[in-house]
Amino acid sequence: MSNNSLNSLIQQLGKVPGVGKRSAQRIALHLLQHKETELQPLMHALSLADQHVKQCEICGNLDGQSPCQICQSVKRDATILCVVEDVADVWAMERSNGYQGLYHILGGTLSALEGRGPEVLAIEPLKNRIRQGDFQEVILAMNATMDGQTTSHYIAEILMEFKIKVTRLAHGMPMGGELDYLDQGTLAAALSARLVI
Amino acid sequence: MSNNSLNSLIQQLGKVPGVGKRSAQRIALHLLQHKETELQPLMHALSLADQHVKQCEICGNLDGQSPCQICQSVKRDATILCVVEDVADVWAMERSNGYQGLYHILGGTLSALEGRGPEVLAIEPLKNRIRQGDFQEVILAMNATMDGQTTSHYIAEILMEFKIKVTRLAHGMPMGGELDYLDQGTLAAALSARLVI
Repeated sequence: MSNNSLNSLIQQLGKVPGVGKRSAQRIALHLLQHKETELQPLMHALSLADQHVKQCEICGNLDGQSPCQICQSVKRDATILCVVEDVADVWAMERSNGYQGLYHILGGTLSALEGRGPEVLAIEPLKNRIRQGDFQEVILAMNATMDGQTTSHYIAEILMEFKIKVTRLAHGMPMGGELDYLDQGTLAAALSARLVI
Repeated sequence: MSNNSLNSLIQQLGKVPGVGKRSAQRIALHLLQHKETELQPLMHALSLADQHVKQCEICGNLDGQSPCQICQSVKRDATILCVVEDVADVWAMERSNGYQGLYHILGGTLSALEGRGPEVLAIEPLKNRIRQGDFQEVILAMNATMDGQTTSHYIAEILMEFKIKVTRLAHGMPMGGELDYLDQGTLAAALSARLVI
């Protein structure tokens, strides 16, 4: 335990989101007991990602090239733009296999509590893209949290000047969800947005 | 998602114990969004640990030097030897502040199910140390698991030829518990109430 490079490795691992002090110790141990099969490949992967992965200058996605593969793809529908909070949300959308348009990453949400105002979000770049692009619809796909919805409303208002169709994701029951376990807000939203069969 | 260095980073992170696929994505994202404050320091720490941390030739502990600081220390009681399964168990013992002797790391347990026999454990080195050293007591501090206790009994039998006092941790340990997860007080109590086998 009294070793400097070991301690600083444990300390660094402990900073990783979701990894506590004890987990960091176990991970450090595991890596050091498998230097060639685990530690060195991880180091190599980190180094490659550090060198090659960059932020897309158009949408803010992370990719090996800028503009990113999605922005460059001719197969994507360049008339729809989906605005999300974070890169992870792009991945989630892509996993859903339900979207073929382009993305715009805000880089977070507005937050009164944490003092994040519009100036830290990629809102000006969004306006420029809409001004210069050929978009017919903007989907606001923020998280269904307080901050996410506040941000969504704020951006919807800003986009009013563009006379463009602005939509948001539907609120309702998650697939496979059970009424009994659903929170009141979700159930109320699903109820008020009920559809004729 | 279709990026090679990003994907291989996520894949490597997913191999780390306790980190699933989704966590690996979140961690990769976090590191790439904080390259200078998180990714690069982690890379540096991994590289330093890779270069400097080695296995102690005597006890099997991980340290910046071999023999390790515990084996080299003149303050430790060189008449007591504590046999543990893994390096994490040495750390747990040290945290308990209840032990001042030396350690011997077996490198695992016997396991009939997983086909691990005595030949994969550091049992011959243990016998050599007892033969050449000046030990008056060997504490078998295996985990209180089936495999740990089997291993403990196996080693106790092997050590009978040395006419040395062989003890085990008191059963103040919760059954099924593992050293690394034990609270310090329980571990210290179990240590001080150790029994002759």
